[in-house]
Amino acid sequence: MAKTKKQPRPKAETPKGFRDYFGTEVTERTQMLRAIAEVYHRYGFEALESSAVETVEALGKFLPDVDRPNEGVFAWQEADDEDKGDWMALRYDLTAPLARVYAQYRNDLPTPYRRYAMGPVWRNEKPGPGRFRQFYQCDADTVGTASMAADAEICAMLSDTLETVGIPRGDYLVRINNRKVLNGVMEIAGILDANEPSKFEYERGVVLRAIDKIDRLGGKGVRDLLGAGRADASGDFTKGANLSPLQIDTVMQFVEAKSNIFKRIHDAQEAAKMSGSDFFEDLVRAKIAPIAQKRGIPVPEKSLAINSHFTIQYLREIVGSSEVGGQGVDELEQISDLLAAQGYGQDQVVIDPSVVRGLGYYTGPVYEAELTFEIFDEKGRKRQFGSVAGGGRYDDLVKRFTGQAVPATGVSIGVDRLLAALREKGRIGGNVTGPVVVTVMDRDRMADYQAMVAELRNAGIRAEVYLGNPKNFGNQLKYADKRNSPIAVIEGGDEKANGIVQIKDLILGAKIAESATLEEWKERPSQFEVPRDQLVAKVKEILDGQSA
Amino acid sequence: MAKTKKQPRPKAETPKGFRDYFGTEVTERTQMLRAIAEVYHRYGFEALESSAVETVEALGKFLPDVDRPNEGVFAWQEADDEDKGDWMALRYDLTAPLARVYAQYRNDLPTPYRRYAMGPVWRNEKPGPGRFRQFYQCDADTVGTASMAADAEICAMLSDTLETVGIPRGDYLVRINNRKVLNGVMEIAGILDANEPSKFEYERGVVLRAIDKIDRLGGKGVRDLLGAGRADASGDFTKGANLSPLQIDTVMQFVEAKSNIFKRIHDAQEAAKMSGSDFFEDLVRAKIAPIAQKRGIPVPEKSLAINSHFTIQYLREIVGSSEVGGQGVDELEQISDLLAAQGYGQDQVVIDPSVVRGLGYYTGPVYEAELTFEIFDEKGRKRQFGSVAGGGRYDDLVKRFTGQAVPATGVSIGVDRLLAALREKGRIGGNVTGPVVVTVMDRDRMADYQAMVAELRNAGIRAEVYLGNPKNFGNQLKYADKRNSPIAVIEGGDEKANGIVQIKDLILGAKIAESATLEEWKERPSQFEVPRDQLVAKVKEILDGQSA
Repeated sequence: MAKTKKQPRPKAETPKGFRDYFGTEVTERTQMLRAIAEVYHRYGFEALESSAVETVEALGKFLPDVDRPNEGVFAWQEADDEDKGDWMALRYDLTAPLARVYAQYRNDLPTPYRRYAMGPVWRNEKPGPGRFRQFYQCDADTVGTASMAADAEICAMLSDTLETVGIPRGDYLVRINNRKVLNGVMEIAGILDANEPSKFEYERGVVLRAIDKIDRLGGKGVRDLLGAGRADASGDFTKGANLSPLQIDTVMQFVEAKSNIFKRIHDAQEAAKMSGSDFFEDLVRAKIAPIAQKRGIPVPEKSLAINSHFTIQYLREIVGSSEVGGQGVDELEQISDLLAAQGYGQDQVVIDPSVVRGLGYYTGPVYEAELTFEIFDEKGRKRQFGSVAGGGRYDDLVKRFTGQAVPATGVSIGVDRLLAALREKGRIGGNVTGPVVVTVMDRDRMADYQAMVAELRNAGIRAEVYLGNPKNFGNQLKYADKRNSPIAVIEGGDEKANGIVQIKDLILGAKIAESATLEEWKERPSQFEVPRDQLVAKVKEILDGQSA
Repeated sequence: MAKTKKQPRPKAETPKGFRDYFGTEVTERTQMLRAIAEVYHRYGFEALESSAVETVEALGKFLPDVDRPNEGVFAWQEADDEDKGDWMALRYDLTAPLARVYAQYRNDLPTPYRRYAMGPVWRNEKPGPGRFRQFYQCDADTVGTASMAADAEICAMLSDTLETVGIPRGDYLVRINNRKVLNGVMEIAGILDANEPSKFEYERGVVLRAIDKIDRLGGKGVRDLLGAGRADASGDFTKGANLSPLQIDTVMQFVEAKSNIFKRIHDAQEAAKMSGSDFFEDLVRAKIAPIAQKRGIPVPEKSLAINSHFTIQYLREIVGSSEVGGQGVDELEQISDLLAAQGYGQDQVVIDPSVVRGLGYYTGPVYEAELTFEIFDEKGRKRQFGSVAGGGRYDDLVKRFTGQAVPATGVSIGVDRLLAALREKGRIGGNVTGPVVVTVMDRDRMADYQAMVAELRNAGIRAEVYLGNPKNFGNQLKYADKRNSPIAVIEGGDEKANGIVQIKDLILGAKIAESATLEEWKERPSQFEVPRDQLVAKVKEILDGQSA
């Protein structure tokens, strides 16, 4: 163990990059995790909680965001008597531990194994604003099946989960792509050789980052990056991938896939209008209507089928000539057909070639859930809220342990970001009512006051006795205020002698204090005198009135 | 960060001393934590979740069980670019972080501050059977008040919590002692000098351990330990405290307090019988009846008042001459009066001088909840289940940071032990039903099967499609069996053509298979053919029948 320096007083500080969560910050997250777990459970997923600590060897090196070299794990070496032992580390995600657990227990677990997990993960990053070294993840994965139905199921479940926790349809989008389609593009552009996967790694890195930047840099900027390089407004020069013009054209077909597809949909719409035909109606009827009819549901209005019809067609044109690329497109089509058949609309789930997820270990479909509403950032600028969940298929993670490839696919929800989004939209985090506070007028009669709170609690009412120094009654009311108490109960010597208690409606009292001119409040009493044995009934009545 | 050795395949093993939790092991704990949080919340406590990582400096060295020198924390040194940074560690309990948080945020928090916290803690112990290096704690503490009402409240809440999670009255006991009473005994025996607290540490250590061993060693064995020492049956010699006979008598009065008190109660009972007086009735009437009457509750049958009357009297006799000892007895009396006034019985809470809690930082009342029912240990011997929670008053923990003494008291529940107790008693952990499994007869019609589970889930029924290789139908039923599925749904080509589905009641099927002679089962069909559009209704009907 570590030797600490002798210091008279330790600093009372949250370690850098870590956070403490208070009150509703904790309970709102607990409620959200419960709601998510209920959806996962209904989908047949089983809970798993692996240890927070793993051997460094078992964790491997699959950290996302390989751009940042500083990133790592919190690790230490086991001290086993005199010998030095294994290196141990805190888990950095919930996927690496799942691979270890599945490899370890594979003979006892059902195949396929659907599991969910929720809990903190730790990253040894340089702390920065909004970047924390401990945060919650909430994952669901299916291990042991190569079926695209597993990927489709995860995407459907992700959509259901977001709607369940309070993000309505229209405020989010699950976007699906396939790593194989990307690989097909690379192959056709001549910067991926299946026999020599380590070749052209630099070029592929530039391409992946360029895809991510198309919205900000536009076509010209991305072309520069794919070619010799690009100078930004400040004159800083970013080295390019040095691709040939033909290679650049190939890649750009993919980089600009989204806008090209939109254009095609628009053109088809116009053409249909001109010819008087009902193109979209026909398309939906052909793809969806039979299924909807069979299931006895109305044909969905914004079916995923329209979007995916054009997207699949376009992608097949540009990467179909590559075997892996064609396979990727087929997989996307299977997923989108399954989701369309379940009635998911293109305002819930879409096939989107612009999705690039950083994690090195994905081998097939990748998906991401983003929130589409706008928020104001710290500088008052509008921006989209962005990604709250992501995942994909990773067929090689268990193989590290067993030598046998085990297909797997799964998603991770960033719980803290999702909570931030709900707070931003005002869906959680309103003013929370504290406990009823029974004040202490006579410290020798603490037993009486304790008896009062016991009665209130037994009636299901949150209540507490003031346990600070009771000498200054003003402090007791200040305390009640700080606790957001709805009601204060007072029983002094006179009240005691007369068998009564005073009950102060603090919410009403605050309203009266706020708007002293408001006559309607003034006429209503905010303090009531009731017989001692009517304490609970009166408190209940006031609480009911407050929440009405 | 740690450099890992190059190794072709990492071992798939839970790190030594750690555990993985599956399915109901996770969900049952989640439910218990929720139930506990609800009680704590009703008592006015607020949630706090501090970071799992603290600086070693902030954690300090307050690990319990100082006997075991191997014990420590998991710690590592921050690497801040080239410089070496602070030593960091995983928290070993939830109290040390609370002291840090309170010191840090004391100006923003209400005073007193009632908070609860739940989560894993880590101990760098040598792993052993049943001893884990990561386990859950669930704490409640009140910071900022010296009032004994805070201690009484924690004990009342502990009693309520145990009954809420399913340990009925009679199966547990909250036992309360006071560190000051112990110190009084030490003072009178001349082995504690308030001006030189480090003197006689060895002797006090022997005395504390002797108190813990009275049940096993008996009076003679403990006397030997307090004197020159003791040889056990095997001849091994344990060095004693070398106290004088007078000192030993003083300590023994305390060590044997419990049996002496029981004897007094018994004698009083006999004397009352002889004289025809109603001693116990009178005692209860004097102490409790007025309060019960005021509160409109019946006089509690096994009131705490009887036990505490004799205990307090005895303790006052033996340590009243010491200032600190007398103070300790006064505090115990206050706590017991408050609890008696709230109607707690001596089968829920008792004053018990034999409670010695190891933690060095306690300064006043200490308490412990033990489960009193017997279980069989791994060798088939009967033993009491033992302690599941403990705590006490620690007035100096915040002072480490701020220099100002801040009184505080709190309890920690060992959640894993409590869960084990409930499993032992069969109150949780029954056979858990898995999801309805929709089998796959035709892999090209995955969309149909997905639509079925979507319908079932929308009706609130847990359901999943079989996602393994569907070729072997037997494997699908084996999978359903492993998942503990109540129902399998089958729709092959013929069923599809006829617009029907087959629904197999797997629970009934298993019962029939188990007891082939049972005629009543045999006559009941375990497989039903229903029109496709009655799928959900029929599944519901079967599920309702199964759970009836």
